[in-house]
Amino acid sequence: MERKDALEVVKRQLTDHRYTHTLGVMETAIILAEKYGEDVKKVEQAAIFHDYAKFRNKDEMKKIILEQKMPQILLQYNSELWHAPVGAYLVKKEVGIEDADVLNAIKYHTSGRVNMSLLEKIIYVADYIEPGRHFPGVEEVRELARQELNSALIKTLQNTITFLLKKNQAIYPDTIETYNSLVLKH
Amino acid sequence: MERKDALEVVKRQLTDHRYTHTLGVMETAIILAEKYGEDVKKVEQAAIFHDYAKFRNKDEMKKIILEQKMPQILLQYNSELWHAPVGAYLVKKEVGIEDADVLNAIKYHTSGRVNMSLLEKIIYVADYIEPGRHFPGVEEVRELARQELNSALIKTLQNTITFLLKKNQAIYPDTIETYNSLVLKH
Repeated sequence: MERKDALEVVKRQLTDHRYTHTLGVMETAIILAEKYGEDVKKVEQAAIFHDYAKFRNKDEMKKIILEQKMPQILLQYNSELWHAPVGAYLVKKEVGIEDADVLNAIKYHTSGRVNMSLLEKIIYVADYIEPGRHFPGVEEVRELARQELNSALIKTLQNTITFLLKKNQAIYPDTIETYNSLVLKH
Repeated sequence: MERKDALEVVKRQLTDHRYTHTLGVMETAIILAEKYGEDVKKVEQAAIFHDYAKFRNKDEMKKIILEQKMPQILLQYNSELWHAPVGAYLVKKEVGIEDADVLNAIKYHTSGRVNMSLLEKIIYVADYIEPGRHFPGVEEVRELARQELNSALIKTLQNTITFLLKKNQAIYPDTIETYNSLVLKH
């Protein structure tokens, strides 16, 4: 699917603000793909569709999680996590994207997972540092991403987990396992 | 075992600094036991012996973890975690303490665990807030401990996990599960 067509499809699913964010993720992810040697077309597609399901209503997402036998533990955790696996499912079903690497990058863009692929890491980090993001620490991660992707990923995970702890929110097990696997190896 | 005898036994295992810390934990834990209705003698005993194995050498602790078939995952994580389960084992073997509740409070005083007993919570929190502790946020936890033990426990876990993240250290799975189980219930 051409970039122009893909953007048209996704624009209808998003608010203006979230569409601008998506363009930022696309732009950032392509820069990272070129730097770290990932397939630019795949990265573009994953970035464009990463938030495809962001504005689906909770009941619809819950139904899909149940019917498609996704990890039921998702339902115990913040519903902000749901749009990632549900998005991967809907992008395949409604848009017809079949590439497993692209779908996995969408599926794990919020939680992370142990042994993330390069494509998954690029989308995860780009989502955090795209130019529309403004919060304490983001510039440090941008700098790390220019040097070494795993360090940027670790810092993204640290910041995200710390943010959730401050808000008294639970930490999804995949997220902590992703972080642990990276620092235990590092 | 009388307090005096127990303190004499543990003093020989600790540095002066750590012995003073142990007295602080004992004093704090007894106050919490009286407030929250736990057996003061058990709390006293668990507090006195909680750091019994703190200064055993790593090789000895590793050998015990292997031979006693403790969770082998411990060996992948920071050795600071080891003295808690190893301590419970040695306190039983060398000091002759048999009370399972007391031994569990020693065993889980560093990692926590899902469904901690009242005794375990008291030792965990007292270890963090005893009068010899001086770090940002400790006064807030002391205040919470005067009001509601679970809130103090949650804040202790949040502060501890945030501290480990800042140091690029892995988070032991039991610790994050303890935190998650408390905030998902809360």
